[in-house]
Amino acid sequence: MNFPLRSVRFLACGLILSIPVVAAPPEPIFGFSPAAAERQRALERKFDAQLDPALLSEWMKRLAAKPNHVGSTHVKENADFIAAQFRSWGFETEIETFQVLFPTPKKRILRMVHPEAFQARLEEPALPEDSSSSLRAEMLPTYNAYSVDGDVTAPLVYVNYGVPKDYEILQQKGVDVKGKIVIARYGASWRGIKPKVAAEHGAVGCIIYSDPRDDGYVQGDVYPKGAWRNEHGAQRGSVADMPLYAGDPSTPFAGSVAGVKRLPLKEIPTLTKIPVLPISYADALPLLKALEGPVAPDEWRGGLPITYHLGPGPAQIHLHLEFDWKIVPAFNVVARLRGQERPDQWIIRGNHHDAWVFGAEDPLSGLVALMAEARSIGLLAKEGWAPKRTLIFTAWDAEEPGLLGSSEWVETHARELREHAAIYINSDNSGRGFLRVGGSHTLEKWINGIARDVIDPQRGIPVGERLRAFRLINGAAEDRRDAQSRADLRIGALGSGSDYTPFLQHLGIASLDIRYQGENRGGSYHSIYDSFDHYVRFGDPGFQYGIALAKTAGRAILRSAEASVLPFEFSNFVETVQRYATEVAKLADDLREETQRHNRLVEQRQFEKAADPRETFVAPRPKAPVPHFNFSPLPNALDRLETAARQFQSALQMRIQTEWQLDSKAEAKLDHLLKQIEPALTSDEGLPRRPWYRHLIYAPGAYTGYGVKTLPGIREAIEERRWEEVEPQTVRVAQALERCAQILDRARTDVLASARE
Amino acid sequence: MNFPLRSVRFLACGLILSIPVVAAPPEPIFGFSPAAAERQRALERKFDAQLDPALLSEWMKRLAAKPNHVGSTHVKENADFIAAQFRSWGFETEIETFQVLFPTPKKRILRMVHPEAFQARLEEPALPEDSSSSLRAEMLPTYNAYSVDGDVTAPLVYVNYGVPKDYEILQQKGVDVKGKIVIARYGASWRGIKPKVAAEHGAVGCIIYSDPRDDGYVQGDVYPKGAWRNEHGAQRGSVADMPLYAGDPSTPFAGSVAGVKRLPLKEIPTLTKIPVLPISYADALPLLKALEGPVAPDEWRGGLPITYHLGPGPAQIHLHLEFDWKIVPAFNVVARLRGQERPDQWIIRGNHHDAWVFGAEDPLSGLVALMAEARSIGLLAKEGWAPKRTLIFTAWDAEEPGLLGSSEWVETHARELREHAAIYINSDNSGRGFLRVGGSHTLEKWINGIARDVIDPQRGIPVGERLRAFRLINGAAEDRRDAQSRADLRIGALGSGSDYTPFLQHLGIASLDIRYQGENRGGSYHSIYDSFDHYVRFGDPGFQYGIALAKTAGRAILRSAEASVLPFEFSNFVETVQRYATEVAKLADDLREETQRHNRLVEQRQFEKAADPRETFVAPRPKAPVPHFNFSPLPNALDRLETAARQFQSALQMRIQTEWQLDSKAEAKLDHLLKQIEPALTSDEGLPRRPWYRHLIYAPGAYTGYGVKTLPGIREAIEERRWEEVEPQTVRVAQALERCAQILDRARTDVLASARE
Repeated sequence: MNFPLRSVRFLACGLILSIPVVAAPPEPIFGFSPAAAERQRALERKFDAQLDPALLSEWMKRLAAKPNHVGSTHVKENADFIAAQFRSWGFETEIETFQVLFPTPKKRILRMVHPEAFQARLEEPALPEDSSSSLRAEMLPTYNAYSVDGDVTAPLVYVNYGVPKDYEILQQKGVDVKGKIVIARYGASWRGIKPKVAAEHGAVGCIIYSDPRDDGYVQGDVYPKGAWRNEHGAQRGSVADMPLYAGDPSTPFAGSVAGVKRLPLKEIPTLTKIPVLPISYADALPLLKALEGPVAPDEWRGGLPITYHLGPGPAQIHLHLEFDWKIVPAFNVVARLRGQERPDQWIIRGNHHDAWVFGAEDPLSGLVALMAEARSIGLLAKEGWAPKRTLIFTAWDAEEPGLLGSSEWVETHARELREHAAIYINSDNSGRGFLRVGGSHTLEKWINGIARDVIDPQRGIPVGERLRAFRLINGAAEDRRDAQSRADLRIGALGSGSDYTPFLQHLGIASLDIRYQGENRGGSYHSIYDSFDHYVRFGDPGFQYGIALAKTAGRAILRSAEASVLPFEFSNFVETVQRYATEVAKLADDLREETQRHNRLVEQRQFEKAADPRETFVAPRPKAPVPHFNFSPLPNALDRLETAARQFQSALQMRIQTEWQLDSKAEAKLDHLLKQIEPALTSDEGLPRRPWYRHLIYAPGAYTGYGVKTLPGIREAIEERRWEEVEPQTVRVAQALERCAQILDRARTDVLASARE
Repeated sequence: MNFPLRSVRFLACGLILSIPVVAAPPEPIFGFSPAAAERQRALERKFDAQLDPALLSEWMKRLAAKPNHVGSTHVKENADFIAAQFRSWGFETEIETFQVLFPTPKKRILRMVHPEAFQARLEEPALPEDSSSSLRAEMLPTYNAYSVDGDVTAPLVYVNYGVPKDYEILQQKGVDVKGKIVIARYGASWRGIKPKVAAEHGAVGCIIYSDPRDDGYVQGDVYPKGAWRNEHGAQRGSVADMPLYAGDPSTPFAGSVAGVKRLPLKEIPTLTKIPVLPISYADALPLLKALEGPVAPDEWRGGLPITYHLGPGPAQIHLHLEFDWKIVPAFNVVARLRGQERPDQWIIRGNHHDAWVFGAEDPLSGLVALMAEARSIGLLAKEGWAPKRTLIFTAWDAEEPGLLGSSEWVETHARELREHAAIYINSDNSGRGFLRVGGSHTLEKWINGIARDVIDPQRGIPVGERLRAFRLINGAAEDRRDAQSRADLRIGALGSGSDYTPFLQHLGIASLDIRYQGENRGGSYHSIYDSFDHYVRFGDPGFQYGIALAKTAGRAILRSAEASVLPFEFSNFVETVQRYATEVAKLADDLREETQRHNRLVEQRQFEKAADPRETFVAPRPKAPVPHFNFSPLPNALDRLETAARQFQSALQMRIQTEWQLDSKAEAKLDHLLKQIEPALTSDEGLPRRPWYRHLIYAPGAYTGYGVKTLPGIREAIEERRWEEVEPQTVRVAQALERCAQILDRARTDVLASARE
C-alpha cells in the first residue's frame, strides 16, 4: 500500500545503513559472543543457500493470476495456498478471519456538463502485452475506498496537490472552493488528506488524478512501451482519514471479530465528508482544459499540454458515486515456529497478501521474499535447528483499504502482544536497487550490521556500502556528510502506509520496514497493470533483489531469534531524538521569525504595494505571533537517557561480547526489560485528537498521511499553531525518555550488576 | 534584443533601487545644492507635464507598421521620421550611416528523414486578431543571424539548454554529440552560446526551439487568446559569438565606414562553426518524439506531452541553410543639444530602432519613451532653458544582429567619446511593472534618488518603494535582507544584450540601463507577434509605464546634465566590488571543496557502486585540484579605495551640498577627473582571449552571453579552471582600483583642497 518511492530524490533522505570506510577483520554480530557469532554465520550461510529465485517467480505468478483484493475469491485461495505452504514447511499455521467493512462501487459517474459535454471513461483498457489485464472477472474498478456516497454538480477548481498550503495560495488569489468540486493531483501527501482538506474548506466533491509530470510520460515511456502510467491508468486507494486511526473504520480500538460492536456508517469519523473519485490523466485533460480564472502558480503546473488555470469553472462537473457498504471476511495467515529457550519472546515477520487488483509488486514482491524466508527456516528446523525465541510469520489481508488485517489482529491480541512481542519486521512492495529501511532507532545499529553482511546482487558489494555510495553522490549536504563520516547509515523514521503501523504506533512494538528500491520503474501502482508481466520487465526481472530482501529480513529474524539478548542499542536512538529535539526547536524559531516577517509586511502593506492591480489579490492577514517555548525538559531527559544508555551498554558489553557470559536466566530477564523500552515511548492517552496513535516519537502526520512526523505531539502543535499544546507535549516526551532511562538503570543494576556477584 | 525578463524569479536578484523605510523631509538631489535642487525640481515638473502617452502610442503604431529590420525599407523611413522629429524639437540631428554585414536566408530546410518523414513548417501564421501578422512584404523568416551556411544530415541529440554543464551530464550517460545534430531549447544562456558549445563538442548542426515550459502554454494562454508564444511562434536572433566582440562581425575594433578593411567571411571568428536554425515547438515536437536512448534528467524535461529522451537518434535530421551574406546600410540617428556651460561633457541617451520584424515591444516600447524625453527637453529649450552639459539622443540601427549600430558608432568615435562622454543611459524593450536598473555602481546612489521621485502609475507610490516591496516579498533571503535594511536598492551589474555594451565594456563609459517589467506578459519576443496589437493588450496598455520610463530616464538626463559635479558616488561601488571579491574567493573555495569531494568519490569508485548496471554510465574522471590563490591584492586595493572615496566625498560634501559652492572652473575640473574613474577600470589589453572587452569589473560571460560575469578575468579563470590566470587577473583588478583611488586623491587634493584656499 505504501507508495513506492522510486524517484532518486526520495531515496536521499531518511533511509539506512552502515559500512566503515575501511574494511575490518571479520566483524562480531551485535548481541552475540564471538563463538556464537561464528555459529550464527554458519546458520545464515545455510539459510541463504536454500533461497531460490525460481520459487519467488512461481509464487508471484500464481498469487497474481487473478484479482486478489479483500473479499475476492482469489484472495481466499491465496490465503489457503500460503497457509498450506507454511504448514508444509513445519509451521503451526492458522488462518485468522476478521469481518471488515469494505465498500465497493455500485455507481461511478463523472461528467462535465458545461462548457462541453464529456463523460469520463473511468476504465483501464486491456493490453495485449499484459496478459492479466484482460481478466475482468471480480476486477475492482478505479475508485477510492471509504469515499462517502454522493451526487453533486458544481463548478471545478484546481487545487494542485490539495494540501493545506495550496489553499493558502488559492485564498490569496481570491479562489474559494466552497460549494465547488476540487480536482487535485496525486502526490505530496497521502491521498486521504486531499478530500479531508477539501471538505474542511467547504468543497462538495473531490477528484484525484495522476498527472503525467508526477506519474506518467514526463517520468518515462508509458506502459506497455515503458513502465510508466499510461493515459488511462488510474490509482485506486483508500481515502479514509487514517491518521486518525488505522484498521476497520467501523471498529476503532476493537478487533472486528464476530459480535463486535460497530459504529453506524454515519458515525464513522474516518469516512470522507465528500464523494471522491480517482481518474486517469486522459479523463482529467478535458476537465482541466476547460478551466479559466487565474493561471496556476509555476510549481502547480503539471505535464499536460495545457495552461493550468485555477477556475472556478466555467467547467461544471457532475459526480455521482454510490457504494455497496458490505462486510467481507479478511483472511490473515499466521504461522508459528515455537522458540526452544524463550518461547514467550516473539519475533514477528509480516507482509500483506491482498492487492487492489493483481498486485505483483504491491504486495507480492515482498510477500514472496517472506515466503522464501519461512521456507528456508522450515528446512533448517527440519534438520533439527530450533530458534531460541518464537517466530511468527504473518500474511495480512485487507491492508490496501487501510491496514485492516494487521490492525484488527493487533487490536484483538493487544494484551498478548504487549506481553510477548519483541520486534516486528515488515515488508511490502519491493523492487530493484538500494536497501531502504525505516523503523525504531533502537534497532539502527543492529540493522547496519546486517547491511554489511548482505551482498548486492548487481555490484557484489555489501548492500549498505552501495547505499552509502548512493548517498555520497546524490544525498543532500547533510546526508552526504553523514554518509562520509558516520559509522552507521541512518534509517528513516516510520510514518504510515504499511502494516507496521498498528505494531509500532498503536502498541509501541519496536519495528522495522525493509525494502529494495530506486532502480525498478514505476507507474503501475494500484492499477490493473501492477501485474506479473510488468514486474518481470520493470520490477526485479530475475528476482535477485527478492532474494536480497529475503537475506536481509531473514538475517533480521535469525539474529533477533538467536541473540543472547534482544539486539536493542540506545546511543543511536538518543542521538536521533536529539536531532528531532533540535528540529522542533528550530521549527518554532523559524516559524516565529517567518511570522514576524509576515506580520511586518502586512503592517507595512507591502503585499498590496507589490501586487499586480490587474490580477485578483487578497492581502494576507496577520498571524498570531509565536511565543518562546520551554523545550528544556527534552535535552534534560536526553542527557539523563544518554548516561543511562552508556552505562547500561558498557556493562552489557562486558558481559556478552566477551566469553564471560550471562546465564540464561539473566538474559531472559534482560530481554524482558529491554522489550519494555519501546512501549515506554508510548502514552496511554495517545496523541491529541487521535488517541489510537500512542507512540510519542513517530506518527503519520495528521496532514501528510504516510509522511512521518517525529515528536508528533510537539511538532504538530507548532505546525498547527496550537501554542498551548507545545509545552505539555514536551513534558510528556521527556517523561517517556525518563521511563526508558529508568528501565535501563534497572537492567544494569538489577540484572547486570547482580549477575556479576 | 535583450530577452525580456518577465518571470518573477528573475526580478528578485540583482536589479535595483531605494527608499528609506521612514519618510523623510523633502530630500536633496545628489550633486545639487539645496537651492539648485529646488530649481531642478521645478524643471522636472515642467518636463513631466509635457509627456503625453497618446504620442507614445501614435509613434509606436507608426514605427511598427511594417517590418523594420536593418536593411529594410521601413527602417530607413523610421530613421528619417525619428530624425525629423528630433529636428522639429530643436536638436542638431544627423543620420550617421554605416555599412554592415547582415546575412538573410536564401534557403532554410529542416526535415526528419528517419524514422518518419517530416518537413518543418518554419513559418508563423497570420492571425486575424493581429493585424500586422499578415504583412508579409520584407518580413524576415525565422532564422538565426550569423549562422554559417551548411547542409548536413545526422542523428539528433537533445542537449537541454546546451550549456557546458549539460554536456557533462551527456558524457556521464555515454551520449556523444560528435557528428550529430543537436536540438537545444532556448533559455539559460544567450542563444549564441548553444551552437558555440555544440561545435566545441563536435556537433555538425544545431536546432534551437522554444519549449512550451519556458516560453509557451505552460507559462500562460498562448497568442492570440493570451500573450504567450503559440505552437508556431519561433524566436529569431543573432548567434554570433558576441562575448568575443560586439558589432559588425567583419570589422572588430573598427567602424564599418566606407573603405574599412573587412575580414573575409572565412576568417570571421564570431560566426558559428555549424549551421543553426530556430524553430517553433510545433516543429520540434515530432523530432523530440522520435528520439530514443536514455530518458532526459528530470530538470531537462520540458512541457511537451512526451517522454524526453536524449538520443542519439533514431531521428535522423537533414538541415540545409544558405544565406545571402550582404552588406546593408545601418542608419543611426544622432541628435545633439549643446551644453551651455560645459559643452565638452556629453550625456548620451540611446535606444535602438531596428527590430526583427515589427518590434512594438523590442525595441519600440523603449524608443517611444526616449522620443518623449527628447520632445519635452526640446520644449524646455524652446522656452529658453539650456542644459549645462551637452545632451546627445541616439536611435541605433542594427542592434538586433549584434549591437551593430551602436558598436560601429562607438568604434568610429572612440577618441572623442573617451574625451567627452560622461554617462550613457540606455533603454530597450520595456513593459509594465517594476523598475529594473542595471549599470555602473558609481551611479547606484544617484539613480536611487530618482527612483524615490518617480511615482508608480498603478500604485501611486515611488517606483523604488514598489520595487522594494517586491523584493521584500519575493526576494531570495539575501535580497530580502538588503531590501529591509539597506538604504539604497541594489542595481544589477550589466552583462550584454543591448547597446550599453560598447559604451561600458569597450570604452569604460559609466552606463545605466533602465526598464520597467514584471507585469507585462511575454511570448512575442523576436516573433512576428511582437506587434502593436500585442503590446496594447499585454504590454503596457495605456503607455503609463512608457511615461514612467520617460520620467525616470528623463530625470537621469536632466540631473546629469545639470548637477554641479557629475553625480558619481563611490561608497556603494566599493561595497559592491567587495561583495564580488568575496564571491570569487568563495567560488574558488567551493570549487576546491567540490573538486576534492569529486576526486575522493572517483578514487573510492563510489560512482560505479551507485550506478544502475542496466543503464549506460561513464564514470567521471578526476579533476585537477584547485590551488589556494593569493587574493589579497583585492582587499588591499579596496581598503585603499574606500579611504580615498570617503575622504573625497566628505570633502566634496562640504563644498557643494552646502551653500559654500565651488567655482565653475573647479567643478569642471572635478567633472574631468571623475569622468576618468570608469575608464580607469578598463585595461588596454582587455580580457583574456577577448581584447575587445576591456572593463575589469563587468563583462558578458564567455559561456553565458547576456549573463554578466563580475570581475570577469578572475571569475572566469576559476570557472574555466585556468589556474595560472587567477593571480595575474587579480593583480590587474587591484591596479585598476588603485588608479581610481589616485584619481580621487588628486580630485581632493588638487581641486577641493586648493579651491578652499
